[in-house]
Amino acid sequence: MISIIKKEQLDTRRKNDQDTERERRIVQSIIKQIRQEGDAALFRLTKELDKADLVTLKVSEEEIDEAMGKVEPAFLEALHEAARRISAYHEKQKQNSWFSPEPDGTILGQLIRPLERVGVYVPGGKAAYPSSVLMNVLPAKVAGVPERVMVTPPLPDGTVYAPTLAAARIAGVTSIYKVGGAQAVAALAYGTESIPPVDKIVGPGNVYVALAKQAVYGQVDIDSIAGPSEIVVIADDSANPVYVAADLLSQAEHDPMASAVLITPSPDLAEKVAKEVELQCNRLERREIAAESIRRHGAICVVDDLAEAFAAANQLAPEHLELAIEEPWQWLGKVKHAGAVFLGNFSPEPIGDYFAGPNNVLPTNGTARFFSPLGVDQFVKKTSLISYSREALCRDGKKVMTLARAEGLTAHAASIRVRLDHAKEGEQKGGSKRANR
Amino acid sequence: MISIIKKEQLDTRRKNDQDTERERRIVQSIIKQIRQEGDAALFRLTKELDKADLVTLKVSEEEIDEAMGKVEPAFLEALHEAARRISAYHEKQKQNSWFSPEPDGTILGQLIRPLERVGVYVPGGKAAYPSSVLMNVLPAKVAGVPERVMVTPPLPDGTVYAPTLAAARIAGVTSIYKVGGAQAVAALAYGTESIPPVDKIVGPGNVYVALAKQAVYGQVDIDSIAGPSEIVVIADDSANPVYVAADLLSQAEHDPMASAVLITPSPDLAEKVAKEVELQCNRLERREIAAESIRRHGAICVVDDLAEAFAAANQLAPEHLELAIEEPWQWLGKVKHAGAVFLGNFSPEPIGDYFAGPNNVLPTNGTARFFSPLGVDQFVKKTSLISYSREALCRDGKKVMTLARAEGLTAHAASIRVRLDHAKEGEQKGGSKRANR
Repeated sequence: MISIIKKEQLDTRRKNDQDTERERRIVQSIIKQIRQEGDAALFRLTKELDKADLVTLKVSEEEIDEAMGKVEPAFLEALHEAARRISAYHEKQKQNSWFSPEPDGTILGQLIRPLERVGVYVPGGKAAYPSSVLMNVLPAKVAGVPERVMVTPPLPDGTVYAPTLAAARIAGVTSIYKVGGAQAVAALAYGTESIPPVDKIVGPGNVYVALAKQAVYGQVDIDSIAGPSEIVVIADDSANPVYVAADLLSQAEHDPMASAVLITPSPDLAEKVAKEVELQCNRLERREIAAESIRRHGAICVVDDLAEAFAAANQLAPEHLELAIEEPWQWLGKVKHAGAVFLGNFSPEPIGDYFAGPNNVLPTNGTARFFSPLGVDQFVKKTSLISYSREALCRDGKKVMTLARAEGLTAHAASIRVRLDHAKEGEQKGGSKRANR
Repeated sequence: MISIIKKEQLDTRRKNDQDTERERRIVQSIIKQIRQEGDAALFRLTKELDKADLVTLKVSEEEIDEAMGKVEPAFLEALHEAARRISAYHEKQKQNSWFSPEPDGTILGQLIRPLERVGVYVPGGKAAYPSSVLMNVLPAKVAGVPERVMVTPPLPDGTVYAPTLAAARIAGVTSIYKVGGAQAVAALAYGTESIPPVDKIVGPGNVYVALAKQAVYGQVDIDSIAGPSEIVVIADDSANPVYVAADLLSQAEHDPMASAVLITPSPDLAEKVAKEVELQCNRLERREIAAESIRRHGAICVVDDLAEAFAAANQLAPEHLELAIEEPWQWLGKVKHAGAVFLGNFSPEPIGDYFAGPNNVLPTNGTARFFSPLGVDQFVKKTSLISYSREALCRDGKKVMTLARAEGLTAHAASIRVRLDHAKEGEQKGGSKRANR
C-alpha cells in the first residue's frame, strides 16, 4: 500500500493550482449581489445554496444555550481545557508597543494594536470542526480584537450544528451569522444591514470561499489559503513502528490529497511501518480516504543517515514534522522549514491539532519556507512613531535634504528647509515666544 | 487650488482597482517564457523591453566600486547615516525564539528564524530611489536573511544608475542582477541558471511588476502592493501654516494620484494653509504633478474640534499622519489607524521617508486598518514546537480523543490510543527497558 522509495524519488514539486475560472465568475457575481442588495441577497442565496429559508441571520444567545445543552459534557469539558491551553500559549505571543526616547530629544517607536473587527469563516454542517473554531478565534481574542464575528452556513432546517455553536461560545465569538459561501465572505468584507464589515477574514472553506477571500483581499486582510494536510515523520530505529504508522494515517484520513511521508535511515523500521500502515488502515472508519491518500501521496523514504533525512524534510518544508528519533533535541537545530515540529514519542501530531496550545492553522504546500502558523501576530497591526526634536532636525536636516534632492523630490527637501530657515531666524531674533513653532 | 471642505465631504472610499486584463496576459506570457527558457529569456526580454543588450546578468563588485566613486561624498555620507539609523531602529523589532518547559514535562514554544533568501525589486533608471533600497533591504539584513538578492532593470547602455548601486552596497545586498519587470519577478520566484529562486519578493514596481508578484504569490511570499502616497495632517492653531503647507506638498509632489489632506478645527489656519499651499506650489520643481494632486485629491477639512479631527483621520486610515497640534502626546492614543504617526512641529514626514529609522514602506489605500509597515517581521517565519511527555499524554490523551472523535477523525484518536494502550501495558509489565518507547 505504501511505497518504499529512494530520496531522489521524493516529490518536492509544488502542487499547481487547478483552473477555477468558472468558480471565479460565480464568486464575482455573488460579491456583486451582496454589495448591491445586502441582506436581501444573503437571504436569497442562503435559500438557494444552503436550502435554508431563514427568518433572521443572527444566531441568538438562546440558540447557543440550547446547543450547549445538546452536546456531551465530556466534549464540553475537553473543549474548555483545549481553549485554556490554546489561550495560554497564544498569550506568550503578545508584544507590547515599544518606544525609545533618546537624549537628543527624538523618540522613535512602534504601536502594536489589535485589529478592530475580525470575521471567522466556519464550514457548515457535520463537516464542521469545533477545533477550527477555537484555533481561528482564540488568537484574535488573546490579541485583544474586540469584535469577533463568525459566519457559518446553516443546515436546511435553519439551525447550526450544536458542537460548532458550543465551540463558538467557549472561544469567545461575539456574534454569529448563519451565512456561508462566497456571500458570507462578501458580507464580511463590505458589510450589509445586519453584518458589520470587518478588517480581516480568516478560516477554512471550500473553493468558493477561497476564491471570494482572494477577491476581497485589499478591501480586508485574509489568511493564507490552506492546502491539503501534510506530515513528514523522521524516525530512527528507536521509534515505535506502531506509533509511526498511526501518525501517518492520522493525516491520511483527512483527504485523498493529504500526504504522509516517513523518512528513515532504518530499512528495518521502514518495513515494519509499511506493514503497520496496511494493518491499521484496514481498521479505520475512514479507510477509503486514508488508503487513497497513502497510495497517491504516501511514501516511506529510506536514506543513508539522519543528516540526509533532515535535508530531505527541509526540501519538503512540511506542514507537520515529527521527530521520532533517539535525540530529537540534538537534531532540532537542523530543521529549517516546517509549520510545526513534534518531538519525541509522546507528541503525536493530533495533540497539536486539538489541544497542546500552538495553532493548528499551519503553512502547507511548501510555504513553510516563508509562512508561519496562525497566531496573535496576524490579528494586530503596527504603526510607526516618529517624534523629532528641533535639535535633532537641525543636526540631521541637511543630510535628509541631500537624500531627497538626490531623488529629485525637492518638495520633500523644502519641508525640511522651511524649518531650518525658521530655526535660524529664531536664533537671530533671540528666540520666539512659542519655543516649538 | 486646494478645496476647503466639510467633514461629510471627506472621501473615505477605497480606490478601486482598474482593469488590468491585458497586462495580466502579458505577465503570464513572460512568466511562462522564464520558466521554460531561464536566462535565455531574461537576455531576450531585457533587450526587447529595456533596450539593453547584456553580456552578463550579474553586477560585479568592480561595477559597484565604480558607482561608489561616481556619487557625491555628501550623498554617500547621508546614505551611511540613514542606513545606520534604519538598522538601529529595526534591531528593536527582532524577536527571539521562545519556549516554555513545564513541570509536567511538556515543552511548547516557537522558533523564529529568518527566511533563507529574499529578492528585492528596485525600479530602474533615474526614477530609482536609493532610499527604497535601504528600506527594503535593511530589515531583511537585520532579520538575519543570509541572501539578499536585488534585481533592477539596466539602462540601455547596460549600466545601473550609480546611486542605486551605492545604496545597494551600503544596505548590504549580496548580489545584484540587471533585470527588471515581470521577467525579474519570475526569475526570482522560479530561479534561472544565473538567479537562485528566493522565498520572498519585496519592493515597488510598475503595474507589470505588481501583477507578476500577485501571479507568483504562493510559490513565494510577496509584500503588499503599494498605492499612491497619502498624508493627513491634523493641525490646531499652534501649527505653523508654512510647515503644514510644505508637508502637504511633500506628498503631493510624488504623483498626481497622491493625496494630501489637512484636518483642522481652526478656520484661520485653514485659510492660511490654503494660501501657503498655492504660494509654495508655484515654487516647486515638480509643480505640475503637485498641483494636479492637490486639485484632485487634496483637501482642507474644517471640523468642530480635535476629537472630530481624529475621528475623521481614523476613517481615512492614512499612510502618513502628522499631528501638528499643541499636545500631540495627549492625543496619540486616539489614533486608531495609520501607517506612521509624526508628532510635533519638527517631525516633517520626509524625515521618516529617508532617515529617522522606521520604514517608509507603509500601508496605503485604507489598509492601515489591518496592514503594518515593512519590518523585520516580514522577513522571518515561525515554527511551532511541541514536546509532550508520557505523563502529560496519559493525563490529556482521553480529552484529545474525545475531541477527535467528535470531529469523526478516528485515526487522529487512534494515534493517541496506541500510546495510551502501550503505556498501560508497560505499567502491567513493570516498565520496559526503553523508557520512552
